[in-house]
Amino acid sequence: MSRCADRQVETGVMKNIAEAQLIALDWGTTSARAYLMGRDGDTVAERNSSLGIMDVAAKAKAESLPLALAFEKALAELCSDWLERFESIPVIACGMVGSQQGWAEAEYRPVPANLADPDYAMASVQIAPNRLMHIIPGVLDRKELPDVMRGEETQILGAVELGGNALQEAEEQLFLLPGTHSKWVKVNGRTITGFSTSMTGETYALLSSKSILSKLIEPTDAVDWNAFERGVRIAQSPAGSADLMLTAFSARTLVLTGGLEKTEVSDYLSGLMIGAEIRSVLGMARGTAFPGVTICGNKELSARYAAALKIFGIDQVHEFQGTAPRGMWAVACAQGLVQTTSV
Amino acid sequence: MSRCADRQVETGVMKNIAEAQLIALDWGTTSARAYLMGRDGDTVAERNSSLGIMDVAAKAKAESLPLALAFEKALAELCSDWLERFESIPVIACGMVGSQQGWAEAEYRPVPANLADPDYAMASVQIAPNRLMHIIPGVLDRKELPDVMRGEETQILGAVELGGNALQEAEEQLFLLPGTHSKWVKVNGRTITGFSTSMTGETYALLSSKSILSKLIEPTDAVDWNAFERGVRIAQSPAGSADLMLTAFSARTLVLTGGLEKTEVSDYLSGLMIGAEIRSVLGMARGTAFPGVTICGNKELSARYAAALKIFGIDQVHEFQGTAPRGMWAVACAQGLVQTTSV
Repeated sequence: MSRCADRQVETGVMKNIAEAQLIALDWGTTSARAYLMGRDGDTVAERNSSLGIMDVAAKAKAESLPLALAFEKALAELCSDWLERFESIPVIACGMVGSQQGWAEAEYRPVPANLADPDYAMASVQIAPNRLMHIIPGVLDRKELPDVMRGEETQILGAVELGGNALQEAEEQLFLLPGTHSKWVKVNGRTITGFSTSMTGETYALLSSKSILSKLIEPTDAVDWNAFERGVRIAQSPAGSADLMLTAFSARTLVLTGGLEKTEVSDYLSGLMIGAEIRSVLGMARGTAFPGVTICGNKELSARYAAALKIFGIDQVHEFQGTAPRGMWAVACAQGLVQTTSV
Repeated sequence: MSRCADRQVETGVMKNIAEAQLIALDWGTTSARAYLMGRDGDTVAERNSSLGIMDVAAKAKAESLPLALAFEKALAELCSDWLERFESIPVIACGMVGSQQGWAEAEYRPVPANLADPDYAMASVQIAPNRLMHIIPGVLDRKELPDVMRGEETQILGAVELGGNALQEAEEQLFLLPGTHSKWVKVNGRTITGFSTSMTGETYALLSSKSILSKLIEPTDAVDWNAFERGVRIAQSPAGSADLMLTAFSARTLVLTGGLEKTEVSDYLSGLMIGAEIRSVLGMARGTAFPGVTICGNKELSARYAAALKIFGIDQVHEFQGTAPRGMWAVACAQGLVQTTSV
């Protein structure tokens, strides 16, 4: 990979770059994003790469390198210029880079987990003679069926910081982080109190590309919202209340019996699955009324979940995108790695 | 493919072969089985091949043959010797050979479907100047989420024939045909009154070979029944009552937190999925008490379902294997294609 191009590096921003306070890395399974953050916690430059931990592990294997060395090379490839130019600012990371398969394991913190706790220990790796990269630990909910997250906790903290008093002083908020494995998280101010993972995104990808249902799918350019909402409404109805394994076959039988077009199958199935997920999550939370949901995720997926939640009677949906850097900034502030000047 | 070898063709059986009354074909998506049936409806010779309709379609495409001609060739490859030697006995088939992608479409019959109805029309294709191959139609349950089967109806009829009065005069029996797409079927005597399909087998294959869960699986030689039953019990418990998309992640998190061995993941997941399927089916049948379940399927899968049903309090499980030929014999009798001498 050649040097990544910076985004949003304009004349007005260049001044801020000179005042950079933090290098923050959102380092996941299939991608790594680097952020250069200014005095007020804003991102002044940003880079994306495909150097996720899977890619780094594959390179280490292909080149017979120790894994740690492969991570060092990946970090240099991603932002050696920043590291050289700003040789004394702190470096922080979140995500799967802190997993057993990552650079250094940052042990999960149990719930309740105060994300802005100044005292909890981060993991670290040495990236230069006098320089560490700090790694934010994931969170563990040690219930009967345990649950884990890595990286999402930092997105949540970022959203809370950006959300102002409404989120910072809320007693029981429901957060949703949609994706390959979507996370439903109960948050009290800046503290995660419990959460559940749904493998919706990964299961959808498998069913729609590898199963018998995939043979009927005719792709379309845009989301077919009618087909999507039909799937959600079925998942909400008594006819669709069984496990997804039993309702998914309807994506085939409705086509066979003339009740669904092949161009509708993909979004119908998406609605059926997201609907089944929401039904289950609301069922698990029985007794707790959630007036709204805060979604942190990409726009297209967030729009699907917002539309589905509305059908389930949840109208108050707040959407955030790209909150991980703000979350890392907040951790760096709480831990005294950077000093805030704006307070 | 070279000529298929006959099974069970021993001296004692040869005599019966000379009295063959019916050639019966269980012709599915990935395999075709041919049976030569004697005067009493017993199988006197049997052949398996991989010439399922997918294979035939692939050959037609590769050799630029019309599909019908490719099916003729496949039939000849399978049993031209039987067709020549017994040139006047009827030929009957069931399964996906009667689907839109098969040789000739046999339109679904709606429920309630009396499988031994002498008057319902079978589809047919001409296989020689004066000879037809009759194709048994599948069954359609036209409910809000419609459901379809092809071939399973014939297995059910075969099991009812073999099951004697207990099944033939039963008012409301629950049948299970486990497999890639398992079928749960309500049967009244010889009449199918309704059914549901669960994509458990296919979803299990995808999750255990292609998803993040697959990375943790260490294969074992034998079924780990403890791990399987643990999965079933969790699916039955409040902690596991959410949709499979939410509970499946526990196959990963239990390993991460030391609660499950990697060698247990595969059977734990199998139990979790079969348990979720049974929980859903029993939930859908609310109000109907099923004292027992009749399972038609391969031994290994049937044993898993029988063990899981027992955990759900259903002890009376009857197992049948290989009932399709007997079902085709019963249809051939009902339709007057063969004359029974045993009554």
